[in-house]
Amino acid sequence: MEGAARVIARRGVRGLRVEELAAEAGVSTALIYYHFKDRAGILRATLEFINDRAGRYTTERDPARPGLDARGELEQTLLLELQDTPDVRETSTAWGELRASAVFDPDLREDLARATRVWVHEVGELLGLVHPMASAAALTAAAERLTALVEGLSSRWLSGSLELAQARELMASAITTELERLSRSRPPV
Amino acid sequence: MEGAARVIARRGVRGLRVEELAAEAGVSTALIYYHFKDRAGILRATLEFINDRAGRYTTERDPARPGLDARGELEQTLLLELQDTPDVRETSTAWGELRASAVFDPDLREDLARATRVWVHEVGELLGLVHPMASAAALTAAAERLTALVEGLSSRWLSGSLELAQARELMASAITTELERLSRSRPPV
Repeated sequence: MEGAARVIARRGVRGLRVEELAAEAGVSTALIYYHFKDRAGILRATLEFINDRAGRYTTERDPARPGLDARGELEQTLLLELQDTPDVRETSTAWGELRASAVFDPDLREDLARATRVWVHEVGELLGLVHPMASAAALTAAAERLTALVEGLSSRWLSGSLELAQARELMASAITTELERLSRSRPPV
Repeated sequence: MEGAARVIARRGVRGLRVEELAAEAGVSTALIYYHFKDRAGILRATLEFINDRAGRYTTERDPARPGLDARGELEQTLLLELQDTPDVRETSTAWGELRASAVFDPDLREDLARATRVWVHEVGELLGLVHPMASAAALTAAAERLTALVEGLSSRWLSGSLELAQARELMASAITTELERLSRSRPPV
């Protein structure tokens, strides 16, 4: 799966050849097909893998600074998607590729929609820790906007239309704005 | 160029074959190469074409409802990017593909960055008409966030992770939030 993420991040989903993937992983193409059945199976497993990896690096915390509050957790989770490290660059590139491919490839859509829902839900929960009185609908909408913005900013950064520092600054101010908005939102009585 | 946008929206940039494009346009491949020099030239010209077309359909106004105010203009400009018409679907798909391809293809980056800057500038101008007292930096940041969000929501919609109606609602509320934020922003004295 690491090999698949690497190959996709290097040349795109459409450039993924099972032969190259097998070479990258040091196994036979037969074993790849035995394990994943087909190309769609490889892409689904890769999506799961990069999703797990993103889950890991966005929840890693600096041991020197323990005890982030809820707002700090939220900011870290979203801003750690915008980092110039090989892992994040590769994961974000592969995620963007799977998103772009799903426009043409219905096989990928369901898994991608599910992964997106899980991500929106997680960010919604963090927003709810900051503003426990906000309605569930307001939390979900804010989480949907913030995660869609991460995707939009990330693909601008990766495609060379936006500096990383600027992308992070825009993201940080969007978080502030959404939190201010939620502080004014109250559930119906 | 219409043919190129159609082929890209149907199978992606990576699926673009000059032979298919020539057949779509009813001309010879030699003429295509004569006119655009190479594949990069075709993609650059297509980017310009879909950009112009998006410029046209986002500024078209309902003749039955003339005289939109500045805020109405802004909302229309951004929300008309999220419509289920063949033109918008094809244009947004092709734009998303060019964005995704630029991650792998440095040839496209400069033109895409320029097109993005022009779009951000236009949206910034509309925001400035609504809030003439907001600072230029605040207007640009808001325009950058709103246009990146259009891209993020649009690719979620096109890839089947978000309903169109929801995408439009999320976009409308983001516009409201950014305008509220700008109403609190003042240029330094």
